[in-house]
Amino acid sequence: MGLLYFEDFPAGQVAEYGDRLVTAEEIVAFARAWDPQPFHLDEEAAKHSQAGGLIASGWHTGVMLMRMNCDEFLLRAASEGAPSAEEIKWLRPVGPGDRLSVRRIVVSARPSRSRPEIGVVEFRFEVINQHREIVMTQHNFSFLRRREGP
Amino acid sequence: MGLLYFEDFPAGQVAEYGDRLVTAEEIVAFARAWDPQPFHLDEEAAKHSQAGGLIASGWHTGVMLMRMNCDEFLLRAASEGAPSAEEIKWLRPVGPGDRLSVRRIVVSARPSRSRPEIGVVEFRFEVINQHREIVMTQHNFSFLRRREGP
Repeated sequence: MGLLYFEDFPAGQVAEYGDRLVTAEEIVAFARAWDPQPFHLDEEAAKHSQAGGLIASGWHTGVMLMRMNCDEFLLRAASEGAPSAEEIKWLRPVGPGDRLSVRRIVVSARPSRSRPEIGVVEFRFEVINQHREIVMTQHNFSFLRRREGP
Repeated sequence: MGLLYFEDFPAGQVAEYGDRLVTAEEIVAFARAWDPQPFHLDEEAAKHSQAGGLIASGWHTGVMLMRMNCDEFLLRAASEGAPSAEEIKWLRPVGPGDRLSVRRIVVSARPSRSRPEIGVVEFRFEVINQHREIVMTQHNFSFLRRREGP
């Protein structure tokens, strides 16, 4: 498969991909390193918290999304980066045994005004669980090179 | 030290904390797991990229911020969570040898209208390097219990 360019992400495009099993071991290992709040660390402590059981750190769900995006398209995209992430919303808990996938929507796509060799693609990402519930959303603006140049 | 409540985060409050050394080993380990783009994975590949050298995944910087927040205040806060993260901006590259700290600003603080036992604190976080440059910012709205109740 060749590189993916700006032109490969037209406004309105929708794609679904990814299948990531969430395990208790990974939830706890991630939390130990980055977010050691009790309801991410320990099943017993989590039972007595507002969460009612072990749940993944929101940042853990975020990096699972990043990894699914890498595997699906970022590693073969003519990418010049994404300088921000907007409106990350954690809508539902993610726990052991959940299977996550991604729905990617191209909200808008336009050539850069200041750099004619690239385009700006506005993505909305939805992380979806096995019940087809959206557990997290994220917006960003990605810079991608144009296939043909300006 | 006792729990920290809504009242401990008045509007206008500024705090600085954290001292995290960024290592090449951690940049690469994080990237292998979550964001395996070449400029996060391999010094040689990174030299030939736009980055000009090994740089940390933006998500890695994000979780370093989360960890510094946990160690400074979240683990002893009467927290009811933060359902979103707004306006994450990656302003400068983070690389091996950088030392990161956090500047936390309370943008606003108000009692919840729907749940009088909690308050909503709007935080702005700035991740700062050893040159006092801001490398990343993030906004969020955190729910914290009130010390005295409504």
